[in-house]
Amino acid sequence: MTQIGPETNGVFIISVTPFTDQGEIDWASVDSLVEFYIVKGVSGITILGMMGEAHKLAETESVAFAKHFIERVAGRVPVIVGVSNPGLDSLVHLAKRAMDFGAGGVMVAPAAGLKTEVQIRDYFAAVFKRLGPTVPVCFQDYPLGTGVNISVPTFLQLVDDYPSLVMFKHEDWPGLKKLQQVRRACDGQAGRRISILCGNGGLYLPQELHRGADGAMTGFAYPEMLVSVCTTFFAGRSDEAEDIFDIYLPLVRHEQQIGIGLAIRKEILRRRGAIRSAAVRMPGPRLDKDDLEELDRLLQRLERRLTAIRGRSGIAA
Amino acid sequence: MTQIGPETNGVFIISVTPFTDQGEIDWASVDSLVEFYIVKGVSGITILGMMGEAHKLAETESVAFAKHFIERVAGRVPVIVGVSNPGLDSLVHLAKRAMDFGAGGVMVAPAAGLKTEVQIRDYFAAVFKRLGPTVPVCFQDYPLGTGVNISVPTFLQLVDDYPSLVMFKHEDWPGLKKLQQVRRACDGQAGRRISILCGNGGLYLPQELHRGADGAMTGFAYPEMLVSVCTTFFAGRSDEAEDIFDIYLPLVRHEQQIGIGLAIRKEILRRRGAIRSAAVRMPGPRLDKDDLEELDRLLQRLERRLTAIRGRSGIAA
Amino acid sequence: MTQIGPETNGVFIISVTPFTDQGEIDWASVDSLVEFYIVKGVSGITILGMMGEAHKLAETESVAFAKHFIERVAGRVPVIVGVSNPGLDSLVHLAKRAMDFGAGGVMVAPAAGLKTEVQIRDYFAAVFKRLGPTVPVCFQDYPLGTGVNISVPTFLQLVDDYPSLVMFKHEDWPGLKKLQQVRRACDGQAGRRISILCGNGGLYLPQELHRGADGAMTGFAYPEMLVSVCTTFFAGRSDEAEDIFDIYLPLVRHEQQIGIGLAIRKEILRRRGAIRSAAVRMPGPRLDKDDLEELDRLLQRLERRLTAIRGRSGIAA
Amino acid sequence: MTQIGPETNGVFIISVTPFTDQGEIDWASVDSLVEFYIVKGVSGITILGMMGEAHKLAETESVAFAKHFIERVAGRVPVIVGVSNPGLDSLVHLAKRAMDFGAGGVMVAPAAGLKTEVQIRDYFAAVFKRLGPTVPVCFQDYPLGTGVNISVPTFLQLVDDYPSLVMFKHEDWPGLKKLQQVRRACDGQAGRRISILCGNGGLYLPQELHRGADGAMTGFAYPEMLVSVCTTFFAGRSDEAEDIFDIYLPLVRHEQQIGIGLAIRKEILRRRGAIRSAAVRMPGPRLDKDDLEELDRLLQRLERRLTAIRGRSGIAA
Repeated sequence: MTQIGPETNGVFIISVTPFTDQGEIDWASVDSLVEFYIVKGVSGITILGMMGEAHKLAETESVAFAKHFIERVAGRVPVIVGVSNPGLDSLVHLAKRAMDFGAGGVMVAPAAGLKTEVQIRDYFAAVFKRLGPTVPVCFQDYPLGTGVNISVPTFLQLVDDYPSLVMFKHEDWPGLKKLQQVRRACDGQAGRRISILCGNGGLYLPQELHRGADGAMTGFAYPEMLVSVCTTFFAGRSDEAEDIFDIYLPLVRHEQQIGIGLAIRKEILRRRGAIRSAAVRMPGPRLDKDDLEELDRLLQRLERRLTAIRGRSGIAA
Repeated sequence: MTQIGPETNGVFIISVTPFTDQGEIDWASVDSLVEFYIVKGVSGITILGMMGEAHKLAETESVAFAKHFIERVAGRVPVIVGVSNPGLDSLVHLAKRAMDFGAGGVMVAPAAGLKTEVQIRDYFAAVFKRLGPTVPVCFQDYPLGTGVNISVPTFLQLVDDYPSLVMFKHEDWPGLKKLQQVRRACDGQAGRRISILCGNGGLYLPQELHRGADGAMTGFAYPEMLVSVCTTFFAGRSDEAEDIFDIYLPLVRHEQQIGIGLAIRKEILRRRGAIRSAAVRMPGPRLDKDDLEELDRLLQRLERRLTAIRGRSGIAA
Repeated sequence: MTQIGPETNGVFIISVTPFTDQGEIDWASVDSLVEFYIVKGVSGITILGMMGEAHKLAETESVAFAKHFIERVAGRVPVIVGVSNPGLDSLVHLAKRAMDFGAGGVMVAPAAGLKTEVQIRDYFAAVFKRLGPTVPVCFQDYPLGTGVNISVPTFLQLVDDYPSLVMFKHEDWPGLKKLQQVRRACDGQAGRRISILCGNGGLYLPQELHRGADGAMTGFAYPEMLVSVCTTFFAGRSDEAEDIFDIYLPLVRHEQQIGIGLAIRKEILRRRGAIRSAAVRMPGPRLDKDDLEELDRLLQRLERRLTAIRGRSGIAA
Repeated sequence: MTQIGPETNGVFIISVTPFTDQGEIDWASVDSLVEFYIVKGVSGITILGMMGEAHKLAETESVAFAKHFIERVAGRVPVIVGVSNPGLDSLVHLAKRAMDFGAGGVMVAPAAGLKTEVQIRDYFAAVFKRLGPTVPVCFQDYPLGTGVNISVPTFLQLVDDYPSLVMFKHEDWPGLKKLQQVRRACDGQAGRRISILCGNGGLYLPQELHRGADGAMTGFAYPEMLVSVCTTFFAGRSDEAEDIFDIYLPLVRHEQQIGIGLAIRKEILRRRGAIRSAAVRMPGPRLDKDDLEELDRLLQRLERRLTAIRGRSGIAA
């Protein structure tokens, strides 16, 4: 089954969009990136999110990218396609194409400029009406990026009204309590169950799992850490899961710098062989000599720590 | 009766806070300003609002200003005291002092930084609990100034929960539909009646009256226009009311420039003899030679128009 | 000559994008709208601005719209194409296509998310480098829409650095002093002359002309008023120009409501026969019965006033 | 010497303001808190910052708090007093009182609402004029809190213009490059030296030290970690410094949640005996059962890690 649903869990990695140094989509890197993610054990992949530079792609590019990506994945894991767009027609167009290509669902954030919660509700009423009942939807709650805030009761109203809303991407910040409130209300008993995956670069992943998250949806350049943390946690070894997490935390924090974080992430993916160029489309950040030396130091420290741990224990970090 | 209530109507002028050229409160001008407003026929006065530079007064100054002002008014009209404050203790302290001095009620805007409507509700729950049931409250809905947006259902919930909430100061922008929705829900039949007075410099006053407002709460430097428009409208002559309004509209628009508008308003009040200095506390706008010449032209045009109208008709503009 | 330059003046009307009730571009209405604007005497037309719902068009639609529009105008007046886009590649792509079609220049606003003035300068350095020296550029200064603020010295630095920057679309608010500072610095003597056209719905047009604007670039549904005001003002009859303006001011103000203002404007254009449908693409405002009755009243008042004036004088309003 | 200057370095802890459970300033806890900080080895203390809930204190409380605090410190380390205020008079009043009490300097952030960098410059021109040349000033660069962004050239202009500007509190985010640019320009050779201390909860402290910071100014509840990291780093053992830091990083990150982070910090300080109550003034966050259990887990993990480290090595963490 390659569609997302209320029971979906694990790690949905947020994919970057690989470009050549000239800024064109690098199709060869798309292929290698897909394999990289799948080899690392992710449960799914989300494309065309904000970190996927979706807003800098032409609509035709987005469609072509979704098609190519989904075909390359070839049903091995579900692919969620970010379709947020200032125009509803464009949103629906991409969503329908993506589902035709075999996407597992779509991710929608409230449009920038929505101010009250009634406006958010009206917006999603229009979105769900246009998408119809068969497109599984992940609601992206990312106020830091969208400027739109939704309270828990309003979100729960959406859950009540639209059965195709099956996933909550939690990345309000700070938002541990909000995550927990949604979890308790949507646990399958107090209310219809939905899947909750957490973003925010994974900075609070152990805490979020304790609060009831079903996994992560973020783009950290070491997906195997996210996978290992989730697997270990759900195997009942929460402290061990957090030990693994803490090893990577300095880098998680480093990637979590808004703006330049994307350039850092792409550079690490390049070094790891996942993509050929770390290019970010303009306007976007560039790493200079100081940034690269700083990254060198952090990666060396990580490597040393991983080596030490592997020597001391059997942690599959 | 000098307390506000659900039936309150007419013009509540938003008072400036007069300063000397050195930036001290000019108590003599407070006295003359009170008389100016009352002579112009206002139904009430609101002090220590945003245009009253309340955030630039020390707490002791605010208390002293409220006391002096209310004593000078001496019960001739109700005085509403703006008590919005980042700290709840400070808010409550000023509110209680003001009521002791004989204020007709207090005005509270949601604190900057509130993001969801649940947060707004929780905030006002705390406010009303601390104020107790006997302090009449005007809710100031001014998202452009506070950054906080509330939808109609959430506001109506506050009306249901707190009987001492008796007035809605409408200045969402644009917000004609919102005003009307509140009106229809709080008309005394569909729901408990509350008073609705409109701000935003009065820029849409005739439209707001058509939509069900009970009057204006704004600081236009010609209060007699606001009074005349409201009186004429409620006498059933809406077109005549709008004719009066349109005569002043160029100046209403001119005063409605955020920031410099306050300096313009104080300069007009100074020219009209209401206060002695147009000083605005730092940081604040200053009028330069170009601004003053521009204002000269606008005031001359207004004067010419008023003269022509008085010649042609009996309009009491 | 159909390219814009430092001497460009008069009224550049901001065109709406006409849609059918189903939300498709209504090509027949594009044609009628072009004729409507030209008959009203505009000096130029700006398409794909924010009020043109550019952000809700797919890139292919924008290209097709620009092509069709420019061909229909057929060189009678210059056409400026708004090309602002979160992605620089998309911006440049549309700009180059537009110039190929015969556009008179392009309009660029700083990308949302730029925070410091150094970032703004860097952004425009990239824009101008990619556009090359032959594409005339209008800088759109619209902080209320973009969230990006630029001070006068930073803007003047751009003027110094990029000769193809030939026009300043002023719509900071309030911003009369800013307009004047740019005017004095770019008057052809103190510094290189550039054209200054004013937006903000025209709400302060007479004041802006006094401050040195070369005309208006806004979308008011009665373009003939804007033309008449500018022509009369530049003929040396500033008071008469403002008299004409003030007749329309209630409606100018009514259209200047952010969000719903666009629906009002399209409805008036529909009533005037310029377009067949007032449809706004989702998400976007809709007028209800109350809004339409309110508009009826305002248009009747305008009509009465115009009739009275025409009877009394020879004003070509 | 208890005044700050261009050579100031080390850890300036940002002090909380201790309240009783009833919300009054808890003077006994002020005394114990002072001793706690000094015992932990800080080089200075900053009071009445944003995390000190300064905006929720009445002006008279701020003055009394500054007086009491400075007297208790009694010259053992310099005390910086945050004096940011929407009104310039209030700012200056508190600054002068604080200096009279023996403060080491004052901290000023640009007032909320400043939009362009010219406005920022004008604002600080007024601030420095009013403060005079003898009050050492720390510029707080905290856009996430103030909404005001300043670029490096504009800040350097302030350094050139005002010799009493001796310290830069860096907490733009992300802002490692900005910090480095200020460092290189203000290194005592390329330009006048100023002190640079870093905030943001210390989340990037090792990176900031590498980039040239002179230390930290933040409020982490384990000041001894900040001290140890800085001391070790400046002793030339940067990797060891970062090892110490990384032990605490999970908690640093946990405290760095805007809003609730303050409640967490106060709760830890309470548990450590520094203050008697973790109360935060309204409106402010409260920790519930889930929050407290989460904190328990994180503190236990920290304790275990510290024990393990102490066993294995001689790290004075």
